[in-house]
Amino acid sequence: MTDDVVVLRYGHRPGRDDRMTTHVGLTARALGADRVVLPDNAGQSAETIRDITDRFGGPFAVELRDDQRAYARRFEGTVVHLTMYGERVQDVEAGVRGDSVDADTPLLVVVGGEKVPFDFYEEADYNVGVTNQPHSEVAGLAVFLDRLFEGAELEREWTDADRVVLPQETGKRVVDPATAAAERDGDDGDAAADDA
Amino acid sequence: MTDDVVVLRYGHRPGRDDRMTTHVGLTARALGADRVVLPDNAGQSAETIRDITDRFGGPFAVELRDDQRAYARRFEGTVVHLTMYGERVQDVEAGVRGDSVDADTPLLVVVGGEKVPFDFYEEADYNVGVTNQPHSEVAGLAVFLDRLFEGAELEREWTDADRVVLPQETGKRVVDPATAAAERDGDDGDAAADDA
Repeated sequence: MTDDVVVLRYGHRPGRDDRMTTHVGLTARALGADRVVLPDNAGQSAETIRDITDRFGGPFAVELRDDQRAYARRFEGTVVHLTMYGERVQDVEAGVRGDSVDADTPLLVVVGGEKVPFDFYEEADYNVGVTNQPHSEVAGLAVFLDRLFEGAELEREWTDADRVVLPQETGKRVVDPATAAAERDGDDGDAAADDA
Repeated sequence: MTDDVVVLRYGHRPGRDDRMTTHVGLTARALGADRVVLPDNAGQSAETIRDITDRFGGPFAVELRDDQRAYARRFEGTVVHLTMYGERVQDVEAGVRGDSVDADTPLLVVVGGEKVPFDFYEEADYNVGVTNQPHSEVAGLAVFLDRLFEGAELEREWTDADRVVLPQETGKRVVDPATAAAERDGDDGDAAADDA
């Protein structure tokens, strides 16, 4: 599913925005996007996201570009702009899903940092608000992706990880991928029983 | 629904964490929590969250405390600790909802910033991972709340706002509450038709 879903971060102020931009990228990765496109001055965030991908698995691509507006304009597929001024996510999510994931058509999700030029509002196929309240572009992206994929992104498997976190009731358990695979196979019976 | 759902932010480094802590609080507010409890050195974040509540409505409470661990230990209700090491949200969300929202029992959601002491893992009723991948405490909180409330939080109405954002296909529209109420009433027929 290479590049089916791309997250584009618009705007980045080095220093001040490093953590937010990193969190946008890590959220995109963890919640099912295939690629994040960052402004070319966000090299530090790109490095952190690539490092996490190396350790915890992929596939996930990080790209630095200086042509965010042209990239969005030329994107061949559906373009969603997340904004608190947009249509309610609960009203449009089925339409977005139908036009993109269900239709096997690429989807670009634009996430603003600093003020987003009006171009993005006009050229987006959907301006979408995860609530019409001011909160966090990271939170909006997370809820949008979880709804877009209807939770299927939580079941994804990762390749080329050098470590795997195994879910625990209490405490922390981190193992190598072979151990994780063996435990998963061994747990199949229990998992099926839990689901019933 | 006063204090049915409380979000507790653990840890805050002034300066470095201001935006993340602010985003935790704004996300808690926008996605249906009743209160956020911040470390007492997070006064700047508290001020921003209160300012947003004054302008965009409530009810939503912001509290500064210096006894996060004791507060969690003494909390009368269900305690969830969000952590990438925890059980998968998709496996435990129904249980959490049954113990809290559905049972009319208060719920405390602990969101870590810096390293969370092992106490929280042990004293939580649920350690919950929104994926077992490293990403963002803001993203994890957002997906957790949206799943906890099954999207009902997106329909909430706000009181004592001095402005209301009306969802738009393109552009920005901000009106006073009376105008928003009048438009909502006028739109009822369309909304019902759209839902059908």
